[in-house]
Amino acid sequence: MDHLIEKTLTSKEIFKGRVIDLYLEEVELPNGKTGTREIIKHPGAVAVIALTDDNKLLMVEQYRKALERALVEIPAGKLEKGESPESTAKRELEEETGYTCEKLEKIVSFYTSPGFADELVHLFLAKGLTKSTVAAELDEDEFLDVLEVTLEEAQAMVEDERIYDAKTVYAVQYLQLQQALHK
Amino acid sequence: MDHLIEKTLTSKEIFKGRVIDLYLEEVELPNGKTGTREIIKHPGAVAVIALTDDNKLLMVEQYRKALERALVEIPAGKLEKGESPESTAKRELEEETGYTCEKLEKIVSFYTSPGFADELVHLFLAKGLTKSTVAAELDEDEFLDVLEVTLEEAQAMVEDERIYDAKTVYAVQYLQLQQALHK
Repeated sequence: MDHLIEKTLTSKEIFKGRVIDLYLEEVELPNGKTGTREIIKHPGAVAVIALTDDNKLLMVEQYRKALERALVEIPAGKLEKGESPESTAKRELEEETGYTCEKLEKIVSFYTSPGFADELVHLFLAKGLTKSTVAAELDEDEFLDVLEVTLEEAQAMVEDERIYDAKTVYAVQYLQLQQALHK
Repeated sequence: MDHLIEKTLTSKEIFKGRVIDLYLEEVELPNGKTGTREIIKHPGAVAVIALTDDNKLLMVEQYRKALERALVEIPAGKLEKGESPESTAKRELEEETGYTCEKLEKIVSFYTSPGFADELVHLFLAKGLTKSTVAAELDEDEFLDVLEVTLEEAQAMVEDERIYDAKTVYAVQYLQLQQALHK
């Protein structure tokens, strides 16, 4: 593996944003030549497969400006500084859907776009949901609709591309696999 | 859904790179207030679940500068301008692993990071693999090792986080689901 390493020669900050930072790096390639890498730094995020007692999946529909369209996704959000993934998962679930959970289990983590970004998503399974007495509390620039769907409805949404992002297609396939294994 | 739309007020190009472009957009939020969105434009990519005749999975290990570590991933690559996802899949499979395929089937597409990027990944299943007589031909800044692993080995690599990116954990779960469904 060591023979694949790229050494940093220079690193230049191009942009520092609210969500992402962009760096342009000059690297020494394994063959000794020089290359450039465009790198996005992101704080990381969590996503939650939230199952109600009657086995429905909580989803949020929101506009994604990068895509100029709305997507149906599992609840998710960015890690705050110093916040654990577990706390972020509970907070985002409650903020976005108004539900709290009794059981929270880590399923998997993955980098979303390792070719250019360091965003790591931690995926959780939440059960024992209770509708909170306080209303959902969104960020000031966050607008979304909450949906409750069956696994079959979610699979249909993957087919017709209303569900169209990595963490949510992974989540739907995860539930299909659990169903297939425990039949 | 229309009540969720964010209208573009201004769009400013911050960076135009070899792989990604960065835009800063001012938007009108659904409540009439103004917000900003940091947006990465990416050409899109393909990824290939390539199964050999003895049911092994072709993987590539490469250094990911954004993560400062190597990952084991399924073969993948960016779409060239005007190139169809199918052609890209065949080209990248051959360039990275030296294998051509007889059968290529589209499985699913997904956006990797809809919160800030428009990167869309098209995932294919390739079978009927033949080792090409010409050597693998990589981009000049691309260095990788080719691995052939069983599904069980791939699952272990997900556990110990050598496999750690969205498209590849999706691919491993896809094969687990196929196995569970066809047992």
